[in-house]
Amino acid sequence: MIVGIIGATGYAGVELLRLLAQHPHVTGIHLASVSFEGEFIEQVYPHFLKKISLLLQKPEAVIADSDLVFASLPAGIAEDYAQACVAHKKPFIDLSADFRFGTDEETYTAWYGKPFRYMELHTESVYGLPELNRELIRNAPIIGNPGCYPTGASLAAFPAIAQGLAGTGTIIVDSASGVTGAGREPGRAYHFPECSDSMSPYKVGCHRHTPEISRNLSAMAGRAVPVIFTPHLVPMNRGILSTVYIPLADPVPVKGLLRPSAPAVTETTDEIRALYTAFYRDEPFVRVLPAPLTAATNRVRASNFCDISVHLDPAGSTLIVISAIDNMVKGAAGQAIENMNIRLGFEETTALDMIPAYF
Amino acid sequence: MIVGIIGATGYAGVELLRLLAQHPHVTGIHLASVSFEGEFIEQVYPHFLKKISLLLQKPEAVIADSDLVFASLPAGIAEDYAQACVAHKKPFIDLSADFRFGTDEETYTAWYGKPFRYMELHTESVYGLPELNRELIRNAPIIGNPGCYPTGASLAAFPAIAQGLAGTGTIIVDSASGVTGAGREPGRAYHFPECSDSMSPYKVGCHRHTPEISRNLSAMAGRAVPVIFTPHLVPMNRGILSTVYIPLADPVPVKGLLRPSAPAVTETTDEIRALYTAFYRDEPFVRVLPAPLTAATNRVRASNFCDISVHLDPAGSTLIVISAIDNMVKGAAGQAIENMNIRLGFEETTALDMIPAYF
Amino acid sequence: MIVGIIGATGYAGVELLRLLAQHPHVTGIHLASVSFEGEFIEQVYPHFLKKISLLLQKPEAVIADSDLVFASLPAGIAEDYAQACVAHKKPFIDLSADFRFGTDEETYTAWYGKPFRYMELHTESVYGLPELNRELIRNAPIIGNPGCYPTGASLAAFPAIAQGLAGTGTIIVDSASGVTGAGREPGRAYHFPECSDSMSPYKVGCHRHTPEISRNLSAMAGRAVPVIFTPHLVPMNRGILSTVYIPLADPVPVKGLLRPSAPAVTETTDEIRALYTAFYRDEPFVRVLPAPLTAATNRVRASNFCDISVHLDPAGSTLIVISAIDNMVKGAAGQAIENMNIRLGFEETTALDMIPAYF
Amino acid sequence: MIVGIIGATGYAGVELLRLLAQHPHVTGIHLASVSFEGEFIEQVYPHFLKKISLLLQKPEAVIADSDLVFASLPAGIAEDYAQACVAHKKPFIDLSADFRFGTDEETYTAWYGKPFRYMELHTESVYGLPELNRELIRNAPIIGNPGCYPTGASLAAFPAIAQGLAGTGTIIVDSASGVTGAGREPGRAYHFPECSDSMSPYKVGCHRHTPEISRNLSAMAGRAVPVIFTPHLVPMNRGILSTVYIPLADPVPVKGLLRPSAPAVTETTDEIRALYTAFYRDEPFVRVLPAPLTAATNRVRASNFCDISVHLDPAGSTLIVISAIDNMVKGAAGQAIENMNIRLGFEETTALDMIPAYF
Repeated sequence: MIVGIIGATGYAGVELLRLLAQHPHVTGIHLASVSFEGEFIEQVYPHFLKKISLLLQKPEAVIADSDLVFASLPAGIAEDYAQACVAHKKPFIDLSADFRFGTDEETYTAWYGKPFRYMELHTESVYGLPELNRELIRNAPIIGNPGCYPTGASLAAFPAIAQGLAGTGTIIVDSASGVTGAGREPGRAYHFPECSDSMSPYKVGCHRHTPEISRNLSAMAGRAVPVIFTPHLVPMNRGILSTVYIPLADPVPVKGLLRPSAPAVTETTDEIRALYTAFYRDEPFVRVLPAPLTAATNRVRASNFCDISVHLDPAGSTLIVISAIDNMVKGAAGQAIENMNIRLGFEETTALDMIPAYF
Repeated sequence: MIVGIIGATGYAGVELLRLLAQHPHVTGIHLASVSFEGEFIEQVYPHFLKKISLLLQKPEAVIADSDLVFASLPAGIAEDYAQACVAHKKPFIDLSADFRFGTDEETYTAWYGKPFRYMELHTESVYGLPELNRELIRNAPIIGNPGCYPTGASLAAFPAIAQGLAGTGTIIVDSASGVTGAGREPGRAYHFPECSDSMSPYKVGCHRHTPEISRNLSAMAGRAVPVIFTPHLVPMNRGILSTVYIPLADPVPVKGLLRPSAPAVTETTDEIRALYTAFYRDEPFVRVLPAPLTAATNRVRASNFCDISVHLDPAGSTLIVISAIDNMVKGAAGQAIENMNIRLGFEETTALDMIPAYF
Repeated sequence: MIVGIIGATGYAGVELLRLLAQHPHVTGIHLASVSFEGEFIEQVYPHFLKKISLLLQKPEAVIADSDLVFASLPAGIAEDYAQACVAHKKPFIDLSADFRFGTDEETYTAWYGKPFRYMELHTESVYGLPELNRELIRNAPIIGNPGCYPTGASLAAFPAIAQGLAGTGTIIVDSASGVTGAGREPGRAYHFPECSDSMSPYKVGCHRHTPEISRNLSAMAGRAVPVIFTPHLVPMNRGILSTVYIPLADPVPVKGLLRPSAPAVTETTDEIRALYTAFYRDEPFVRVLPAPLTAATNRVRASNFCDISVHLDPAGSTLIVISAIDNMVKGAAGQAIENMNIRLGFEETTALDMIPAYF
Repeated sequence: MIVGIIGATGYAGVELLRLLAQHPHVTGIHLASVSFEGEFIEQVYPHFLKKISLLLQKPEAVIADSDLVFASLPAGIAEDYAQACVAHKKPFIDLSADFRFGTDEETYTAWYGKPFRYMELHTESVYGLPELNRELIRNAPIIGNPGCYPTGASLAAFPAIAQGLAGTGTIIVDSASGVTGAGREPGRAYHFPECSDSMSPYKVGCHRHTPEISRNLSAMAGRAVPVIFTPHLVPMNRGILSTVYIPLADPVPVKGLLRPSAPAVTETTDEIRALYTAFYRDEPFVRVLPAPLTAATNRVRASNFCDISVHLDPAGSTLIVISAIDNMVKGAAGQAIENMNIRLGFEETTALDMIPAYF
């Protein structure tokens, strides 16, 4: 099994390489990079020394020599590579947004500013969130790997929606990301003295992951689910924490609440948590945490887990679900490999069964 | 003007001392500490060497020798000191929660687990948020200094409520704090390897600042305002960022929106920002940021400013207001000195006109 | 192959468990903890949920049921466990300082304040630095796993000493460690607000790793090598960077130096680097970096590598060697597993061939 | 007193502005910036909003309208501005390296790669380290403000040299800096994900501050003092910690040493510390710390202090002196204002008497 990575020198590409190098069914890896073509990956990233020495090639060469191709590129340029892969019946897993919207060109264009060039490719593509689309992924020629924020947000809200807890009100997703989420290119906002020891929101009300989250929740609900999404930048390398506010369909009497400041362990919360646990019972990478734990990013660091904790507003009107993922793993490279495993019939956890590096 | 600090070796006490030492009208300072009585402050905190050398005394001695007294203690023990100060007509500014609820013993007891011991003291106390109660503070014998989270959250929501923008729906306050907010005592959650490079929520749905926020917003609204509040811990020393979701009374058509992913600078947002700017026109410490800036904690670091940025959900149903404060300054010691300045008739910005230390 | 870990809830114990769980020849693991006996490891460290569920037992039970035992305990209490293991012919790998000094009780007692209780155990013990003692480790009943600082410092200095470059002057080791090096117990010095965004030395001139470094270098030199060692605490989780100043036996003319501020790539440095590279040619975990790279802790993060860069004072009198390790891996748990692999005849890199997590 | 800042939008320029704005004798400030000419400073740095609103002008206009001029520019371009100031008898304080070497063009050129253009300017310039040259500064037309590393290193070594403790051996300066030291321009090395949670040396053996340190120590010694200097980058915003190894002229018997691992409080260390304390008795900004304190950067944060702790190798051959400064204050802007105060006859501590922001 030989795999190719186009866009190998971005952070997601590098994480793909780190994880794929330890995949027992991957016998060869080819890398492509526009910026560093002709160099070796260990020259660009010397932490690969003594482990990996691979030439950075042209995308065409990588596609020609690989059985499956990952692309980790900015939005708007994956279609040609997808086309080439489909033509040669090579599965194509795209980490950009280009294949996350199925045939909904209108939404894609509204948020990403570009039209689809080959609509037929989108017809064949599948949104690669295994917890939502596992069966479709098994045969998809093109898999659109989910965005980092949408992964954590969707997994937090799915059970409440699927089980009828969620009302029709707007779901608010308040998220925070580590700085690797901004990619490898230096910029003022990611210059250490400008972002360390500080917290800041960005793209409030207008981040491109908003329609992707809404699309996922709507798919689960079978109706349009309005979403407000606010991302924040926090001074850490990896991790996304999402705090998701879900208005309940019917406000519930909160049983077992001694007083509002007591630990939020009530019978009602226990019941909802049980629903969540049941919903994800067979999912290898989702952990619904027992009370009184709350999800935190360090407990999933460098793993493919999504941790979820379930809480309830004392007034009984809003469910508060917290999810934590590693943005580079479940939020990008790990989930892409999960999709590869499903697509190729490997055990889904292959090369992804890392224990989190808590510290 | 001689001032006393009871609880001088906690972080808020130390910040009070740092700021008061540069106050031109403060001619003497007395310190009390239970934990370190008999030692000198510069032994406990050697960064004061060559600047301040003061003995840590008993609270009684400090009260006796001071013209005004600050107390920075855990909840539930300020009443006796307040009583002593009132008896000798010395203004008392309490940084704990004990005098933040007026005569509403029921709420205080529900959340803090203790009854009031001297109701008459609470009758005389004023909640020391200058932007809300400036005139009452001028003559208050006891001032209950606001909590850190309630300060940032309330200032973010006040204009929307006061000007009728806010509907009757629940206001969601999603906040993140630096670790100094947890105080000086080491604990597992604040052990560097357990909280650095990570983000985690805590006390979801049950943090004691919830009723204080609700009380403030209700006071502004003239009706009960339901609030959901979720605090998070982020790996930074200082700062609180609050993202406040305010359902609008009437969904507004968003004028000037080119497309949803465009920078959120619309005519409608401009109009709302103008209302905010007008509301705080005469406030020395609130800065409503011009578009397209978003509030961030590093821009208020080590200052008494509260920065506010105003955003709008593209659907036009929810106002998203971000506020940033330094939790040790506007969120604690700075605001306490602001209250002192008001109470004693000094210029309100005296000793508080620091330019933020952006880096 | 069933292994036991005594002291399983300290950071080194937890890292051992994380790595051993992925060791193909380890079929069972037993854990002991004094502090948490009777609990499950995933209760103490919930990041193990869905991955590992193991009861924390008494040390005696762990020894009885294991084929090889690791102990990760404070200095001064390993001898009894070692005795029990030796009696049952079970290899014992101790991560404390207790078996790092061979039979040199005098040095151990001078620095650790305790005598040896069973000298015969020390006679049989081997200092487990594979690059120094690989052959002895193969048959050792007791292996004293090296300290974190001594590992990085010794590997930096060995080639210069072995190849006669080093003179007889004092070797200065200036090191900096991440905060996990301080262990799991919270304390003021490791409280986030007291150590983040700051750098501080500690135990200047009196850190217990000084005699261990000196002993290692002396063993390589065949004479007493005087060492000065200064550790520092830096705000990062993992990693030790050591800057080692080695006075040259004979000052060398620095060939190829264009001007002092030019990049320190000279012919002379190249020659010395070649000697270093040759010295470690067959070592799987030591990487002598090509010019102009300098060792940095993020390039070895979460790996068992020791990166080394070689530099030269422009005056030609002092060799400056930088080494970087992950203090929890090559500096503790990883090296302990390396010792296990050697002792049991496994491939030395088994379960230790991780690619560093650069970001 | 109207002052000008050329290079006002770099970090040192911004820190100058922050501090000068609170200087009681500064009645006006003019700013120049090449990159942002025509904009207002609060547009470039919005943390100045509501505090400072100043147009960024051309350097010539700033010089014309100011009584004293600071320049904070890259090396090699200050001479023209200096010339203009000298011509109009306006004191010129340069924060670059251009006036740090007196008339020693050879050293400057060897390390900075450029010749002097106006030697006569250098004849008139004074190196602005007040602890070394206070009297000369009082009348200097041009003051070369010291480099950040040389300030901390020199203050650490001066007393040992002046009092004859130091031998003729090479003095090793091992330093670590926060990332603001790299300036405002983003770059890969300062991109948050590449430098957070990591430590790395840079320019080993070839940093341009080496000759400046050597020059200072030689001036104090009255002979050439060889220096090896190694800078490191650590994940913090501000601060420089220098660990300085000074070979003693005569190895001393260490009196009072109970055992090597005991706290390094010996009679001999006390004696040396007393010499240090005496040396700096009248210096307002140098604090020789009492035992057993060690210098740390957080205790001088945002202040003009240089903290020094004195330690002794147990073998009695090497003095280990630690110094800590804030690189932006005593290491740059603070010291520049100190020079201004001296030059203009103000109290030296004016606008510089901040208590450190320990957390």
